[in-house]
Amino acid sequence: MIPRGFSFSAVNAGVKSPENKKLDMGLVYCSRDATAAAVFTTNRVKAAPVIVGMELLPSQSIRAVIANSGNANACTGASGIEDARAIMRAVAGELKISEDQVVPMSTGVIGMRLPIERMLDKVPALANGLGDDFESFNRSIMTTDTFEKIVQKQASKARILGIAKGAGMIAPDMATTLAIVLTDAKVPFQELGKSMKDIVKTSFNAITVDGDTSTNDTLLVLSSGMVEVNWSELESVLREAVQDLALMVVKDGEGATKLIRIRVGGAKNDAEAKTIAMSVANSLLVKTAFYGADPNWGRIMTAIGYSGIEIDPETVLMSIAGIETVRGGQISPHYDEHKLHQALQEKEIKIEISVGQDPGSFLALTTDLSKAYVEINADYRT
Amino acid sequence: MIPRGFSFSAVNAGVKSPENKKLDMGLVYCSRDATAAAVFTTNRVKAAPVIVGMELLPSQSIRAVIANSGNANACTGASGIEDARAIMRAVAGELKISEDQVVPMSTGVIGMRLPIERMLDKVPALANGLGDDFESFNRSIMTTDTFEKIVQKQASKARILGIAKGAGMIAPDMATTLAIVLTDAKVPFQELGKSMKDIVKTSFNAITVDGDTSTNDTLLVLSSGMVEVNWSELESVLREAVQDLALMVVKDGEGATKLIRIRVGGAKNDAEAKTIAMSVANSLLVKTAFYGADPNWGRIMTAIGYSGIEIDPETVLMSIAGIETVRGGQISPHYDEHKLHQALQEKEIKIEISVGQDPGSFLALTTDLSKAYVEINADYRT
Repeated sequence: MIPRGFSFSAVNAGVKSPENKKLDMGLVYCSRDATAAAVFTTNRVKAAPVIVGMELLPSQSIRAVIANSGNANACTGASGIEDARAIMRAVAGELKISEDQVVPMSTGVIGMRLPIERMLDKVPALANGLGDDFESFNRSIMTTDTFEKIVQKQASKARILGIAKGAGMIAPDMATTLAIVLTDAKVPFQELGKSMKDIVKTSFNAITVDGDTSTNDTLLVLSSGMVEVNWSELESVLREAVQDLALMVVKDGEGATKLIRIRVGGAKNDAEAKTIAMSVANSLLVKTAFYGADPNWGRIMTAIGYSGIEIDPETVLMSIAGIETVRGGQISPHYDEHKLHQALQEKEIKIEISVGQDPGSFLALTTDLSKAYVEINADYRT
Repeated sequence: MIPRGFSFSAVNAGVKSPENKKLDMGLVYCSRDATAAAVFTTNRVKAAPVIVGMELLPSQSIRAVIANSGNANACTGASGIEDARAIMRAVAGELKISEDQVVPMSTGVIGMRLPIERMLDKVPALANGLGDDFESFNRSIMTTDTFEKIVQKQASKARILGIAKGAGMIAPDMATTLAIVLTDAKVPFQELGKSMKDIVKTSFNAITVDGDTSTNDTLLVLSSGMVEVNWSELESVLREAVQDLALMVVKDGEGATKLIRIRVGGAKNDAEAKTIAMSVANSLLVKTAFYGADPNWGRIMTAIGYSGIEIDPETVLMSIAGIETVRGGQISPHYDEHKLHQALQEKEIKIEISVGQDPGSFLALTTDLSKAYVEINADYRT
């Protein structure tokens, strides 16, 4: 059930090193001009493919995506831009399209030039190998991911395929999320970009593993426009698809043993609710406590207090795993430490926080912080 | 060489539990009215002793500090305030001073009432035990600290004694830094508070272990005013004393194996330099890389990029352990990965970052992030 018009291929190009034999270079092709929009990292240090991508998009005539793992092509200056363009040019030549119809994406180690000769050598094989195998394409962009991240949906007769990589963070040597959503549904060009910005707020911008924002993050949507669908129906399916991908990314957070959903309500507005939720979601003390199944709610109160948002601690209500823990900023009369400690053994935990009577709310997703996280990220890059 | 006018005592009151026999309650007494100023936590969730202390200070008539470890008296509502005041009242009664001349301080687990009866029982012993033993007082306020934090200085004939607790973070069950600086030098009351706010910027507000800000942080300065000293001389010695205490606190960061000094220069102003330095200092990916002696400078560039400050990546210059690593936002021609990996085995590492030509600069101190940090903080609170 691949969206009509799209095909895929993947090869090993030895991007990280000639000895590394994993799939590390992939191509997505669209048989006609695709409508495309993207949301890029907010990091001021942007990788070369992000700088180039921001010039190309949005567009109504994208024909291909050329991606690689093993090297982020970030902090590589003008040479990095040249390298990205050289690969785009080679892909365009093979596919008989124009260079500006090819979107580049890279993920991996920062600060090293791409092994451009090895990569250019593989472009013909990529062009000749196009077919239905989107799973191999997904594997070619994976870094420390431990599972494939693919979502397939339908909106009436239209098909949606989402493919992502990301272990919720900048892995050792690596940059983080790349996500591509393909659809054969016709999309209104003007609406698409605006809609993606909104969708990203409640998906990729609501997850955190370690609070670090990569130089390469990209969410790209491509539409081949071959099926007529009601836009509002399509938009809500697109939103689900992107949220599903974001959930898979956070679940694959490095070393994570638990998924934690933090809902903040009662804030002045959604932005303030988000700031509070992210302050809790990024607290090392909260994350290590959940790793140890320690019902240390004082750490959550502390993170609420230092978020920078004005709250009255005496209005705070909190339940963890459905157990009322805090009422009026103090320990709840219903609190049962033994019961909560038991509940914290679960793999998925909900925290509900109310900070007042106003309508602002936000749901953030995070993970616990384990010793494995430190192991994965302390390794010397060899 | 104790500052004239001050005496100390410490006892075990079983604050954490009746079985816990460590020193956990301490008293500092001044034989005459002391001039006092304090800097408190910016957390909106403030512990009861902080709320009470903010009402008392600054003051020209403080006579005592009553402190405890094992319980932070935070998130305890009106009852917590009552408990703090009950102890202040008992101390005042024993010492024949007024309740508002006693500053309370607490550190430890959040969200539990103080064991007020056990603590009140010990107040007479504290008052009767006053003497020169400031080290026992220091031990009585320690939580996960692994060493005593004491600094002694002189400014002409005046003496300065600094005493602190803190392992750079909110330890399991615990809140973080308490620091008391005592002097017999006469200080100008109007200047003292302003000066402390400035000193704290380059000392306690320049250190980070995990980015969490406690509910209880307090830096208190007391002067018995018995020796005349030039204020600007005294001020610079006070600054040194507080910076030394802050350095000891970050060096004792939980699980830390390395001290990292991050100097950012060339920023538009000091505030922007601080934001960039703290973004690097708090990055889990930077901290885990230093734990592994991994010369992963791309993670530092990434943290500079997402700090929120507008910088031009192409102006960035960086040296790590004296080795030029980044020039013009890219890998430096002088970079030597093997040499840098060797240098990163050291226990103290300097990172120098320049982000432009402007005069703003800041020095932040942080630690690496080890598996021991996760172990210490994941333990179930029993």
